[in-house]
Amino acid sequence: MKTDIEIAQEAQAARIEDIARAESIDEKYLEQYGKDKAKVSYQLLKDTEGKPDGKLVLVTAITPTPAGEGKTTTSVGLADGLKRLGKSVAVALREPSLGPVFGVKGGAAGGGYAQVVPMEEINLHFTGDFHAIGAANNLLAALIDNHIFQGNALRIDDKRITWKRAVDMNDRQLRNIIDGLGKRTDGRVREDGFEITVASEIMAVFCLAKDLKDLKERLARMIIGYNMDNEPVTAGDLHAEGALTALLKDALKPNLVQTLEHTPAFIHGGPFANIAHGCNSVLATRLALRLNDYAVTEAGFGADLGAEKFIDIKCRMTGLRPDCAVVVATVRALKHHGGVDKAELNTPNVEALKKGLPNLLQHVENMTKVFGLPTVVAINRFPFDSEEELNCIADECKKLGVNVVLSEVWAKGGEGSEALAREVMRLCEDKADNHFRFAYEDSDSLEEKLNKIVREVYRGDGVVLTAEAKKQAKRLEELGFGHYPVCMAKTQFSFSDNKNLTGAPRGFKITVREVKVSAGAGFIVVKTGDIMTMPGLPKVPAAEHIDVDENGKITGLF
Amino acid sequence: MKTDIEIAQEAQAARIEDIARAESIDEKYLEQYGKDKAKVSYQLLKDTEGKPDGKLVLVTAITPTPAGEGKTTTSVGLADGLKRLGKSVAVALREPSLGPVFGVKGGAAGGGYAQVVPMEEINLHFTGDFHAIGAANNLLAALIDNHIFQGNALRIDDKRITWKRAVDMNDRQLRNIIDGLGKRTDGRVREDGFEITVASEIMAVFCLAKDLKDLKERLARMIIGYNMDNEPVTAGDLHAEGALTALLKDALKPNLVQTLEHTPAFIHGGPFANIAHGCNSVLATRLALRLNDYAVTEAGFGADLGAEKFIDIKCRMTGLRPDCAVVVATVRALKHHGGVDKAELNTPNVEALKKGLPNLLQHVENMTKVFGLPTVVAINRFPFDSEEELNCIADECKKLGVNVVLSEVWAKGGEGSEALAREVMRLCEDKADNHFRFAYEDSDSLEEKLNKIVREVYRGDGVVLTAEAKKQAKRLEELGFGHYPVCMAKTQFSFSDNKNLTGAPRGFKITVREVKVSAGAGFIVVKTGDIMTMPGLPKVPAAEHIDVDENGKITGLF
Repeated sequence: MKTDIEIAQEAQAARIEDIARAESIDEKYLEQYGKDKAKVSYQLLKDTEGKPDGKLVLVTAITPTPAGEGKTTTSVGLADGLKRLGKSVAVALREPSLGPVFGVKGGAAGGGYAQVVPMEEINLHFTGDFHAIGAANNLLAALIDNHIFQGNALRIDDKRITWKRAVDMNDRQLRNIIDGLGKRTDGRVREDGFEITVASEIMAVFCLAKDLKDLKERLARMIIGYNMDNEPVTAGDLHAEGALTALLKDALKPNLVQTLEHTPAFIHGGPFANIAHGCNSVLATRLALRLNDYAVTEAGFGADLGAEKFIDIKCRMTGLRPDCAVVVATVRALKHHGGVDKAELNTPNVEALKKGLPNLLQHVENMTKVFGLPTVVAINRFPFDSEEELNCIADECKKLGVNVVLSEVWAKGGEGSEALAREVMRLCEDKADNHFRFAYEDSDSLEEKLNKIVREVYRGDGVVLTAEAKKQAKRLEELGFGHYPVCMAKTQFSFSDNKNLTGAPRGFKITVREVKVSAGAGFIVVKTGDIMTMPGLPKVPAAEHIDVDENGKITGLF
Repeated sequence: MKTDIEIAQEAQAARIEDIARAESIDEKYLEQYGKDKAKVSYQLLKDTEGKPDGKLVLVTAITPTPAGEGKTTTSVGLADGLKRLGKSVAVALREPSLGPVFGVKGGAAGGGYAQVVPMEEINLHFTGDFHAIGAANNLLAALIDNHIFQGNALRIDDKRITWKRAVDMNDRQLRNIIDGLGKRTDGRVREDGFEITVASEIMAVFCLAKDLKDLKERLARMIIGYNMDNEPVTAGDLHAEGALTALLKDALKPNLVQTLEHTPAFIHGGPFANIAHGCNSVLATRLALRLNDYAVTEAGFGADLGAEKFIDIKCRMTGLRPDCAVVVATVRALKHHGGVDKAELNTPNVEALKKGLPNLLQHVENMTKVFGLPTVVAINRFPFDSEEELNCIADECKKLGVNVVLSEVWAKGGEGSEALAREVMRLCEDKADNHFRFAYEDSDSLEEKLNKIVREVYRGDGVVLTAEAKKQAKRLEELGFGHYPVCMAKTQFSFSDNKNLTGAPRGFKITVREVKVSAGAGFIVVKTGDIMTMPGLPKVPAAEHIDVDENGKITGLF
């Protein structure tokens, strides 16, 4: 069987100018980056204002398992399928982070015959967006410490600096550091730390910005820490927003590439799905919608995190409204939710499947009832899935009024998703079935917002804030951030805050340990436990197997 | 008077495809990065092998002063001047580092009417080369610490790790750190530090690599530290070279931009001129030579450092041979060498000029006698330079058989360098006057090499190695690095190792405090004092004045 990189490298990609032309993107808006990548000027969005948008398809999934669900692969394959059915369509996805490429996993650009290309470049530097975000993050960090070193006119409390440095690498060694050591001229000693670039608030700001002006305003609002009176100090107080915007101005232009079937793909931005909202940039989604009948986009992790944030954060801030939702699942993953070991997942086991199925059903009900969206379940089919298992899923979903469609995009590309594409088209055209709503209101208190998410989406018994978290929530409300949406940072492996509670657990509470504001992004981050914002490398890093021949051809990048 | 950025932004740049076409670069070798930047495939060098090279013009300068000499400006203007005289010509320059842009200085892309454009982009991310180098540097750092964390099979001594982390930012806070703090799973506590990206050995490796294969071999040879037996541990021992090459494979393609007068400019690579050799990439220089009658390139700092290393390191390793040298000076700077305060430099003062002139004469003699190159002195003319001062310079240079030409490239672009261009052409065509030689032989001992540089180039009384440096030199010779060229890391402000000894000091010795090998770059770094590899920001960083309007136009970047 061919690896993803082999399939990608054998593909005959279209010229990116031709992809752009098919999208009616005039040459003046296109900036090529190499032969097969381009950036599209945000001016195009301004110049096409008033043109009606296409349909927005949100691809989400069941609670993730080690078995893998194939959400990106389904998004890519679905776009290819819609194209086969004669629709103009683009897929809008997140950019992968560089660090993990050298760790355990390889690429994050789909898989099999449902990939975006050039796969290696998308997984490496791509068009440099993450480097720009990292540079902006670290310029701000340098400006903070320089301000303190040069006299600290803002009276920044160095024990209350919340801004961290960033590197786009899996480097556990940098999680906790002491810097400013050395001579008098080498800064001031303090505790500090690095996050992986995708965890930077600038990544979230970047993905939520409507345009350059909004970007600069958001950057200025970012809180870098607190002063001796415990009042927030912002990037704007340091006069940093102009220089940060200068570093980000080209990165903010959405990237255009293509799927293996020459469907346009806007791959742009990629914030964490726990401490941030986990969706590609607003500009990329808007551009995909503006230029096409259909835009397929995905949200991070399972629907409890990714889709909830897509709706309650990204849609709330921007006015974007999905026309339907696709919930991706596999028989293997549902059996895992039913308690089956990874080694046994290929053996038919209807009992286990039935035990795991409530996970899917809860996500489906959330999409239809909590968020009011027309929904389809896409089962990424494997050869060893039994008819009985598949029928069982279909029967239970039917009771919720939702159809199940089998998808074979990994092996067949767009051809494998034609049935899914047809169901998506049917759902999108039936406007009457769309009762889109948020899980909570802006005016709810922070605790009310959390309780609504926990009770309605997670189906737990409510939220418990530690004494410290209560104090923090109260302070943020005093500071005027009470109307912000909340961004739940919890394990992606369970509806609860305990990663071992698979399936559809009941009778749990969510304990909130820390509440902080991302004032530039515009949401309140709610941490239910330790969230890892800097991964490490495994015993044998993938880096050891990556190679390049003398013609520049890369091998070993999966 | 217009600022550099205003002049650059008003310029009507040619399409980069047209610049490439004029250079006979077939479209298949060209990879555009936005509208006005491109990378050129190294395949072009392979495919044009055998084609005779053009003439190589090395632009160097007197010992730098705060008055400024204008070496890059002269290089750009000279290329424009040669073009005006009907020659096909390209200029090959270093890429500027991102960090300093936010500090005191702004751009490093020439000035006035002798600039390369797009000035803002060249000074910011350009085509992402430095980000790629930083990522490679930090991947290697992460692999080192991960190796130790995962059991340390190579028995790396964590007190002898010489590899540092890198960020392309002026951030003194990161000079000296302790990392690996926190829990058992957060790495192992050790002392560490960051350098600015341009100080990474990978930058030097990148600039000296002949091709991808050579790049990978050099990367594998880089020493990251020593094991418990004090034996070197290399990047190759960590199986890192493939992944590092993957990160660098696109960056290694030379960047093509243009001057304000549409002369092609290859701007590629930019290593430090103290701990490294301070020249643009070998590939860019080669490409400029292969495609043109003339290639104008510059070396860092004054000729004692930049030109010496250009010749003894870059030329020695690659077979490149300059056809002539241009030594840039200003009347102002020579008066500074004569002891005049910065505020008084615009007042005619022949006495002070005569006191400072020996600095120029020593550099000129070095170029003609030590290195055997036909040489011209280019005086960057200012309106307040007196005839008497200019005549005095011309008379003294004449005695060395070298002509002085006035250059007005800042105000007039290529028109202001036609006289210089004519003299350069005359020198390049007179092959008989070229007696190119190195300052020392490969087979000289390290101490002999140093003594030759100090006595012949600096005109000091020889070199003194501290006991520690002696031990290090002996150890490096034992390890088989004795035949490597030496890379002197000393102050750029004096021929001596004391920055206050301006002019042409005599009777000094150079004290060497540390000797280390850059085994991938292929030279021995000889430190004569503390070399700053991580700059800091000033009291009011330039970043505070940089801004972007809603159309993406940058202001405040000088």
